[in-house]
Order: sequence, then C-alpha cells, then structure tokens
Amino acid sequence: MTTPLRLGLAGLGTVGTGVIRIIQTHPDLITARAGRPVTISAVSARDRKRNRGVDLSGYTWEDDPVALARRDDVDVVVEVMGGSDGPAKAATEAAIAAGKDVVTANKALLAHHGQELARQVEAAGTALRFEAAVAGGIPVIKALTEGLAGNEIKRVMGVMNGTCNYILTRMESAGLPYETVFEEARALGYLEADPSLDVDGIDAGHKLSLLSAIAFGTEVDFDSVELEGIGQISIDDIRHAGNLGFRIKLLGVAQMTGRGLEQRMTPCLVPAQSPLGQLEGGTNMVVLEGDAVGQIVLRGPGAGEGPTASAVMGDVIDIARGVRIPPFGRPASSLTHAIPAKAAVPAPYYLRMTLLDKPGALARIATQLGDAGISIDRMRQYGHSEPTAPVVIVTHRTMRDSIDVALAGFRDTGVVVGEPVAIRIEAV
Amino acid sequence: MTTPLRLGLAGLGTVGTGVIRIIQTHPDLITARAGRPVTISAVSARDRKRNRGVDLSGYTWEDDPVALARRDDVDVVVEVMGGSDGPAKAATEAAIAAGKDVVTANKALLAHHGQELARQVEAAGTALRFEAAVAGGIPVIKALTEGLAGNEIKRVMGVMNGTCNYILTRMESAGLPYETVFEEARALGYLEADPSLDVDGIDAGHKLSLLSAIAFGTEVDFDSVELEGIGQISIDDIRHAGNLGFRIKLLGVAQMTGRGLEQRMTPCLVPAQSPLGQLEGGTNMVVLEGDAVGQIVLRGPGAGEGPTASAVMGDVIDIARGVRIPPFGRPASSLTHAIPAKAAVPAPYYLRMTLLDKPGALARIATQLGDAGISIDRMRQYGHSEPTAPVVIVTHRTMRDSIDVALAGFRDTGVVVGEPVAIRIEAV
Repeated sequence: MTTPLRLGLAGLGTVGTGVIRIIQTHPDLITARAGRPVTISAVSARDRKRNRGVDLSGYTWEDDPVALARRDDVDVVVEVMGGSDGPAKAATEAAIAAGKDVVTANKALLAHHGQELARQVEAAGTALRFEAAVAGGIPVIKALTEGLAGNEIKRVMGVMNGTCNYILTRMESAGLPYETVFEEARALGYLEADPSLDVDGIDAGHKLSLLSAIAFGTEVDFDSVELEGIGQISIDDIRHAGNLGFRIKLLGVAQMTGRGLEQRMTPCLVPAQSPLGQLEGGTNMVVLEGDAVGQIVLRGPGAGEGPTASAVMGDVIDIARGVRIPPFGRPASSLTHAIPAKAAVPAPYYLRMTLLDKPGALARIATQLGDAGISIDRMRQYGHSEPTAPVVIVTHRTMRDSIDVALAGFRDTGVVVGEPVAIRIEAV
Repeated sequence: MTTPLRLGLAGLGTVGTGVIRIIQTHPDLITARAGRPVTISAVSARDRKRNRGVDLSGYTWEDDPVALARRDDVDVVVEVMGGSDGPAKAATEAAIAAGKDVVTANKALLAHHGQELARQVEAAGTALRFEAAVAGGIPVIKALTEGLAGNEIKRVMGVMNGTCNYILTRMESAGLPYETVFEEARALGYLEADPSLDVDGIDAGHKLSLLSAIAFGTEVDFDSVELEGIGQISIDDIRHAGNLGFRIKLLGVAQMTGRGLEQRMTPCLVPAQSPLGQLEGGTNMVVLEGDAVGQIVLRGPGAGEGPTASAVMGDVIDIARGVRIPPFGRPASSLTHAIPAKAAVPAPYYLRMTLLDKPGALARIATQLGDAGISIDRMRQYGHSEPTAPVVIVTHRTMRDSIDVALAGFRDTGVVVGEPVAIRIEAV
C-alpha cells in the first residue's frame, strides 16, 4: 500500500488549484491518512500560460483532457472542468474505459449522465465519486450514502446554492430589491457565467437530483425536478414573511410519497428560528431525515476553493484507502424508475395579493378559498393610503392544486389587482 | 459478495434492540446498499427472559459474550454492552483475536483502551468502528476520518451530552435551579445509572478524546481532558450570560496549540445566536474546523434507540461493503504522544462575584484585574437592596492563569463575598 496514488487533474480553475494547494501543503498528513502518498502526474486546462499562483513545474502538461485521462501514469482522474457534456464527459468516459477511478465536482455532468456513468464504472470495476458536486465542503454524499445507510430515508432538504441564499438574505438585511442585489452579486463574482444556473435553481436542482437518487434508490431524474427560481421574490414578500415569523429560502425538498417521487427546488417559507431559517449568506445546509436516525442537519461552506478541494480530497483519500462503493450507494442497475409526483404532499401556503378597497372584497377572497376547500390560518390586511390594500393570508395545509383553483377564482372576483403570490410553507 | 455478513450482537439494551429492529424492518434495503445480506447469528445479554419487544427466536442465545465473539458463524461482533472493562473489553478482544471485525458504541472502552485495541485490530487485519460512540446518530467519526481527511484539523468542538444540554436549557427556560432540574432529569430516565458520567462531563470527555485522536493524529488521551461538570452552574449565571447575549453550554474543545494538545470539556459561554448557542434540549452538535474546508457544523440526536442503532448500522454496512480504514484514520503506531496543554489559548472570560457595598469596592476589583494584566470589556453592577451587590465582568482575551491570579487577588481585597465565578467565553 505504499505505492503512490497518482492523479491526473483535468481543470485548473478554483477547485483544481485548491486540490494542488492541499497536496503540496500536506503531503505527509495525506500519506499518513491515505496509507500511501497521493501525487499528481499530469494536469490539463485550456490556458497553459495563466498564472494560477501554484507551482505546476512537477506535473506533465496535457492540452487534451482525454489524453490526460488515458495516461499510464494516472490512476485517478480528477475532473474539475465543469459542463454537462463536452470535454468533461469525454474525459470521464475515457478514464472509465481505461479502468481508472474518477473524482468529479461536476453536478451538471452527473445530473444529466450520472445513471449512464454509474453503469460504466460498475462494469469497469472502478470508482466514481462526487462529494464536491453537492454542497461544497459538507460531506453530505458520504453521510447519506454511508453514515445513514441503515435508514429508510424519509426526506432530504437543502439550501444548496449559496448565491441565491446570499441574494435573499441581503435583500432582507439591506431592504433592497432583487434586481439591485442581483447586480451586486454579479459585481462580486458570485454568479455563474450563466446566472440562470444560480437564480433559476438549476445548479441547486442538479444537486438535489443526485441526493434523491442516493436517498431513494431511484434513477437520477433531474428533468423531473420542479424548478422555480428566486427572480419573482419581492422585498414585500420577504418583509411579510418576516412579520409572520418566516424566512424565504430557495429550498430543495425530495421525498418519496404515495403518488411517487417529489423533487422540488423552489422558494419556500421556513420558520425563521429553524436551522434552515437562520442560515445566512453563502453557507449551505442539508437536512437528512431517516426512519431510525430522525433528523440530521449539516451546515458548511457550499463553494470556494478550499471547501470544494477538501471534498475532492476526501474522495481521493477514500480511493487511496481502497474504498469501493457504487456511485449512488447501490448497483446502478438496481436503481428504480420513480414516477415523478408534483407537490404531492399538502402544506400550508403563504398568499399575498393586492385588493381593491371595495366593500366585500375580502369576503370574496375568503369565499374563493372556502370553495377551493382551503381554510385560513391567519389573514392580515395592512394599512394603506392608496385605493388598494395589501392582504397576506396563511392557509392551513392544502394541496397545491387547490391553491391553483383558488388563485384562478381570485381573478374572477374582480377585486384582485395584479397577480397574487403563493409560496409554500415547508415544515422543517 | 452475496455471502451474508453475520453479526453477533453482544448486548440487548436500547441500542442492541434498535439494531435488531433495523435489520428486521429493512432486510432488502440493507442488502441493496451493503451488496450482501446482513444477518444476525447469535445474541448475548445478561437476562434471557426479559421481553424486549423484538423477536429473538431466529438467533442463537449465548450467555457469555466472549463465547459469542468466538463463534464460527459470526463475522462481526457488535458490542453494545457498555463499560470500559469487564465483559465488553473481554468480548472485543476475543473477537479481534478470532479475526473478527468489531462495531462498538462503547465510548468508555475506547477512551480507556482505544489505543491498545487499535493496535490489536491492525495486527489482526480486522476492523474496529465506533461511529455510535460519539454524538449518537450524527455521522461525525465518518465526517472527520474520511470526509475531511484532506484537511489539517484546527479545532473540534461539540455539545455531546444531551442530558447536560437538557438540564442547562431547562434551567434557563423554566427558571429553575440545577438541583431541581437534575431531579427532573433523573425522574425522566435521562441520567446514567451513575449520573456523574453525565453531569461531570466524563461521558462527553470520553467522546472528545476519540475525536481528538482522529483530528490530530495523537494517541487517545482521556486522562488529559480537562473536565468540569455543570453542577456549579447557577441560574444567576445563566441569566447574566443571557443578558450579555450568551448561553452556557457544556462544551468540548480540542485544538493543537503551540504548547501542546488542549482538550477541554467544561462549561463555556457561547454567543446565543451561534449554532451552538441555539442548541436546545437533548440534541448534539459537533463543529469541525479544517484549514481547507473552514467550519462544518453537524447537528442531530445524540442518543436513543434509533439514532444510535443507525450509527451502528452505518458501520456494519461499511464493513459489508469491504471498507477498511484504521480506527483512528491512520495506523495506530503512527499516532503521536501529544503533550497535554491546559487552557493554552487566550479567551475572554465571564466573571461574576458578590461585592460588599462599600466605597471603592469596585475599584479594588478593577485594580486586581489590571495588576493581573487583564483588561475589561464590559462591567455591570446590578441594582440591589441588600448590603451586597452582584457584579458581572466580561474581560478581553486573557490566559486562564491570569484569571486565577486575579481570582486570588479578589479574595485579598476583603470586599468579595463568597467564591467568584469564572467561565470561559469560547469563540465559535
């Protein structure tokens, strides 16, 4: 076991640089823990000339990540390029075909091709690990796949996009509208090149689909994740939610229901005093619920060089130690195809609308809710100087379908100005 | 890999019963995840006749746990009897000598003999795993040993005795003195048969010594853990701390300092708004800090049938999957002997004392602090009707030695009534 484990590093962005820094800083620590040295044989990136602040002189340079993946002096390919297809997929497949293990931080690749890649690695007898793909430095894949392996998982929840959480908490603390904070986040470099990956919940949805597959033994099914971004969240909703004792979070929820597998990545209200409600800024949190263990909450940095590289190195050291567990915790062929179920579990909802200040306006709204079978927990009409009045309602538990019936009914009353807002309140 | 993994279960208390319940409830789920069935061959406990609410008819009964450990039809001995010596140690050593793997929930056994047992299992080429021994259902051993293996660990902190946390939070919420809540906890069955294991910090100190060994690559050294229980915490201190924005927790802290390894399990003030400060009741929390990952916070149930059995099953399934990692994350022979360092890192302190209502009394206290090189952050003298006045002081960062000098000086002033209280404020 003193043979070194030799890495080929495909990608020298933030994460790749972080991996090099860890390996160069702590060689003896890693050798002691891994039971053998971990070295880097070769690296690959688009721009050879860029100064990355780390010494690359000891590593062979490959322009082509596929060539890197096939090198004889590489045991493990660390794929930290990103992108659901293209070079990342090609390098990963080449590595597997050459009998090598793969460690990746690439959630998009796995959300789209995880099923197929898991089959390939299991046929090849190699490992594919992706701790860094979900919730950055938090070892949540490990906790779910290994630590809680004795549990039937009941629900997985998470705030897994730090940028969205930053935007929402900043809107609240500074009282600024979405558009302003979005531009701030862009200027600070917090947003992906395509910001819709962040603010439309796509990136977080990728992560949720991976956790779902492990939790419920189902095929990775990103396409069935109900996605709703934070672009429609107004400062008014954040304030009203706060007055009611809630915070708005872009919350992922996955659970197996009587109707099928529910996967959502949508804005939700959560109690302000809950661990999820208290989460500020770019930190991530994942909540795992199992029949034996109850609720486990994991919190930590969701992105950044050190945390993501830490997750990559955890996987690399596992491979060095000889750990071999199927990518999704059971054979890929045994993952079942779950029927997707949209909003299959009832919940209370937060409703906000603007009413014309007419006699009987509120009664008409209440009637529509009653007709849809929805009972009201709390209703607040706010003081106003205009001829319209903001009204906020918290319902008792109901189905999303009933909410949609009520929303359609509201339009017919002729007293609602603009579009009413409906946001689910998740019990956490 | 379809050969069953056969367990011998030594101990049929809460945890043992929980393990049986998981195995009987989810055989297919466990087979899918473990890659092979997990079965129970034989069980052992003191009282054969007791009804434990689970069906034992399929398992061979052994009166003697050592005989159980040596059975040919047992691959893994699950030791959930407890006790640092006696049958637990004998059964564990017999299992290792017979080439079997061991999963244990026994923190006392490992805190006292972990070093020696780790050497035995490594010589025998078997596994010894103990996730259930620390923080119940939270997979913290796994997170630290495996997930964060790429990190130099900077500090480990934790609230790891649910009973103490229950007592402290109940004192605060109900405004009751320690003695009353202690009796409540005893009546509720929250306390160990020997309550000093809980309230004197011994149980939590055992856990901390195991985390230290993994985190810092040092020999398990429970004897060097600075232990201080919660019996001296008064409702007054809880109230004053609350007014200052703090909560009092029995907090474990382990860190490698310039002077050596500091391990403390003592009452500390932590910010009320921090994750540790917000921890209520019997829940446990562990904070892991690494140079790459930053801070990871893990929260979950610290005791009880389901959570502890969940941790045991995680270890069992790892063994079924073929995972073999040294008990403390690196070869036992490579664990270094750390010099114990007591309170080696400066911190602010909370001081409370009762002063005679004499002119110049407060000045004499301030002078003593100044003479000890301690500067004052905040000082509050509370209104009073008696001839004595309660005074609370928060100091700037200082060494414990300096605090002790100041406390001795206070006695010489002749204005302090009774014993002054000094509690460390931990930055979390």
